[in-house]
Amino acid sequence: MFIYDKMLEYPVKIARTDPRLASIIISQYGGPDGELGASVRYLSQRYSMPFPELKGLLTDIGTEELGHLEIIGSIVHQLTRNLTDSQIEKNAGFAPYFVDHSAGVYPTAASGYAWTAASMQVTGDPIADLTEDLAAEQKARLTYDNILRLSDDPDVNEVIKFLREREIVHFQRF
Amino acid sequence: MFIYDKMLEYPVKIARTDPRLASIIISQYGGPDGELGASVRYLSQRYSMPFPELKGLLTDIGTEELGHLEIIGSIVHQLTRNLTDSQIEKNAGFAPYFVDHSAGVYPTAASGYAWTAASMQVTGDPIADLTEDLAAEQKARLTYDNILRLSDDPDVNEVIKFLREREIVHFQRF
Amino acid sequence: MFIYDKMLEYPVKIARTDPRLASIIISQYGGPDGELGASVRYLSQRYSMPFPELKGLLTDIGTEELGHLEIIGSIVHQLTRNLTDSQIEKNAGFAPYFVDHSAGVYPTAASGYAWTAASMQVTGDPIADLTEDLAAEQKARLTYDNILRLSDDPDVNEVIKFLREREIVHFQRF
Amino acid sequence: MFIYDKMLEYPVKIARTDPRLASIIISQYGGPDGELGASVRYLSQRYSMPFPELKGLLTDIGTEELGHLEIIGSIVHQLTRNLTDSQIEKNAGFAPYFVDHSAGVYPTAASGYAWTAASMQVTGDPIADLTEDLAAEQKARLTYDNILRLSDDPDVNEVIKFLREREIVHFQRF
Amino acid sequence: MFIYDKMLEYPVKIARTDPRLASIIISQYGGPDGELGASVRYLSQRYSMPFPELKGLLTDIGTEELGHLEIIGSIVHQLTRNLTDSQIEKNAGFAPYFVDHSAGVYPTAASGYAWTAASMQVTGDPIADLTEDLAAEQKARLTYDNILRLSDDPDVNEVIKFLREREIVHFQRF
Amino acid sequence: MFIYDKMLEYPVKIARTDPRLASIIISQYGGPDGELGASVRYLSQRYSMPFPELKGLLTDIGTEELGHLEIIGSIVHQLTRNLTDSQIEKNAGFAPYFVDHSAGVYPTAASGYAWTAASMQVTGDPIADLTEDLAAEQKARLTYDNILRLSDDPDVNEVIKFLREREIVHFQRF
Repeated sequence: MFIYDKMLEYPVKIARTDPRLASIIISQYGGPDGELGASVRYLSQRYSMPFPELKGLLTDIGTEELGHLEIIGSIVHQLTRNLTDSQIEKNAGFAPYFVDHSAGVYPTAASGYAWTAASMQVTGDPIADLTEDLAAEQKARLTYDNILRLSDDPDVNEVIKFLREREIVHFQRF
Repeated sequence: MFIYDKMLEYPVKIARTDPRLASIIISQYGGPDGELGASVRYLSQRYSMPFPELKGLLTDIGTEELGHLEIIGSIVHQLTRNLTDSQIEKNAGFAPYFVDHSAGVYPTAASGYAWTAASMQVTGDPIADLTEDLAAEQKARLTYDNILRLSDDPDVNEVIKFLREREIVHFQRF
Repeated sequence: MFIYDKMLEYPVKIARTDPRLASIIISQYGGPDGELGASVRYLSQRYSMPFPELKGLLTDIGTEELGHLEIIGSIVHQLTRNLTDSQIEKNAGFAPYFVDHSAGVYPTAASGYAWTAASMQVTGDPIADLTEDLAAEQKARLTYDNILRLSDDPDVNEVIKFLREREIVHFQRF
Repeated sequence: MFIYDKMLEYPVKIARTDPRLASIIISQYGGPDGELGASVRYLSQRYSMPFPELKGLLTDIGTEELGHLEIIGSIVHQLTRNLTDSQIEKNAGFAPYFVDHSAGVYPTAASGYAWTAASMQVTGDPIADLTEDLAAEQKARLTYDNILRLSDDPDVNEVIKFLREREIVHFQRF
Repeated sequence: MFIYDKMLEYPVKIARTDPRLASIIISQYGGPDGELGASVRYLSQRYSMPFPELKGLLTDIGTEELGHLEIIGSIVHQLTRNLTDSQIEKNAGFAPYFVDHSAGVYPTAASGYAWTAASMQVTGDPIADLTEDLAAEQKARLTYDNILRLSDDPDVNEVIKFLREREIVHFQRF
Repeated sequence: MFIYDKMLEYPVKIARTDPRLASIIISQYGGPDGELGASVRYLSQRYSMPFPELKGLLTDIGTEELGHLEIIGSIVHQLTRNLTDSQIEKNAGFAPYFVDHSAGVYPTAASGYAWTAASMQVTGDPIADLTEDLAAEQKARLTYDNILRLSDDPDVNEVIKFLREREIVHFQRF
């Protein structure tokens, strides 16, 4: 199956347990400029896109973002799957997330704001939708920049750099 | 590609233009118990699911719901793609959607409430997540029931009945 | 005072009472791509903008959008200020707004979704913020296009055409 | 039991089926100035209220508002419990609510905006909390005024007038 | 009066002042799976429940959850009522709550997300509503589990264990 | 230009870099009782205010609050504009904000909840609107009180004390 294969294609292997870092990277899962928003935006915009090439492009990139969503979900999961009780207690920054979601992967921003479709738009107008997409790619790129500033985990950073690169490629394709 | 293929597998062909009906069916796209919520719920829950069979089941069903999301998006699109100016003006119920999204497909409830991850949960606990999923399937089934009560379009109803059937199958698998 | 003067500069004079139209135009006041979002976006982004010319541009356009917000507020107000009891009862589309806000001007989308800062972004990155602004201007232009499709009131349309023109000028300046 | 008794004390008996009216009155259940907000506001504020008389007053009025919430819920229920299929189809204004909630009673505004605690405040400061409460009572009174403007059902109006009167009594007690 | 009596029945006596713990436990007050959501869910669902025994059960459990809400509110209040200025300054985790609510009890998740009715559902369908309720009880049980993992205060834990036990009894009754 | 001049009138000069403090003070920018809410509330309420003196008062105070919004934005900006990489990493409390907004000024509460118009009301009723405004001024005053309890920066506190004083003047004028 598609999604499962993608996971195999880009194997995420995070050695460290680091709930603090997980509670930041979650923003790329369900934050305002994360991969959930990206995929829902593109896959929703394509229906009303009148030009077949652009409809195909939106389908392509939207599907790739679903794969990225999966990669980010894997990072968050691996950073928290071996949490000990003492690590839970000591990580004040992770506790507000933990009380409601334990070590599950929930689509929220690092700020604790649950993902909302209010953070994206589908206008049915090709020009408006495409400029929205250009903005989305720039904002996603910036979020990756900020994660790199906040993380010193080499396993994580290698994946984040790859994903950041993809956003720039998307920006150029739009 | 996966998603595109799925569309071919279940060809949606709606003859009528009916913005009123589109403005109701959109709830199965981005409403509280629609297909976006279903797919994000299952695909997010699988990371922390400790049992491989259940992890696979969540991936399977979550991926199928992405296909359903696409089918619903196609219905909404086809019900509105040939809108004439006079149809726009006369459809008071569609105007609040139209002013912000034209004939684009946006993830919102029929009530106008943008989809929010607050309407789903990932707890990282297998029992809690699976009972959440059982509830989700029942609520999706009910939404399909209600669409059938509100629609008399045979093209639409045939698809909706198929999708409603799938929710019952999912309920039984969980 | 600034804001009051602006109102004098662009006198809004709507003869008709039309709650249905008011309930659509409100989206340009508090909808996802309306003038409240525009002004808050630009006036918030300017603090972190490192280039003085762009900081000045954001202040300029953000301030102008406050003036536009005032113009839209005046349109909504004038379309509803002389509502008779019988007009209130007959306008099913306006009743959900009326029950909570009477003929007051409240920052909401036509869909009934209260304005949220989740629909805009400030990233602190000049490139990301400026592409966000380009998208915002295109989306605002589209909203004005849609209002023109839904309105046949010449008093309203004259003002809307002027405001639509301004969004295109802003897009070119960014 | 308390709540059940309250229902007996103020028997709501609505003869007519009127989904349009139900879709307006729901704002007094889960709208921004409805009874759910009132009871949660007062019952939450009392913990930090330092003066025993005022703590008791908040408990009293908050508990009474729970009773009012029940009365409003009963009105909405009785206006919709005998809905025929043809009434569902013909009531465009009720369909967006119906698709997700059938004839259930859900805490939302008439606009379709789900109730949120963001519409109320608990500050832990006696003066700030009490002025908030005065405002709440005035806004609830206005909502009842507006329902009376939109309803011509004598069964409903008799109850609404009683509840409106209570808000004025609460305003005076605060 | 009902609510006040309940408080007497289960006297909450917390000796320690611990704003960090309060900022976690608040999720059981206004979080996605907390007691506010539980009581509003059950007390709203009962109107459309066609079977008298189940209507009574929803009223019973919904009312009991109001009592639990009160117990949780008391815990949060007692953990913060004697806050010194130095404790306020030192508790970084509590400051974001404190700036807007001081030591008041506000219905929010630990993440800072204000309670929203979007996190619950009333469908008007007995099967859908009851599976929703089963899920709600499991999620509430999990939240209590997590609080016990994050708390080492014996006064608090004794109460939390009692409440957790009740959720399991509710699950079995549904 | 108006807004720019206001900034000159009240020059904000913060010497220290303190992201922790910025992440608290942001609540006075985009929190439930902050200056964005104040200005949007008053400037929106004036359209339906029937008495010219009160319409003028709402315009006056609403415009002044826009100036205060600017002052708060300047404080937040100056507290974070010289952030070093090491300061970013060490400030756990600031990281959830930083990942999505870097050192930009975004309208959110300290809790991470994006500003929403759901936290204010416009009822079109003079009495209800004015009591809402009295409550707003008290809540804003309390927020300033709490910032003073959480801040020991003399540059910041001097400005906050001035703004707090203004809220009391507004309360008296209403």
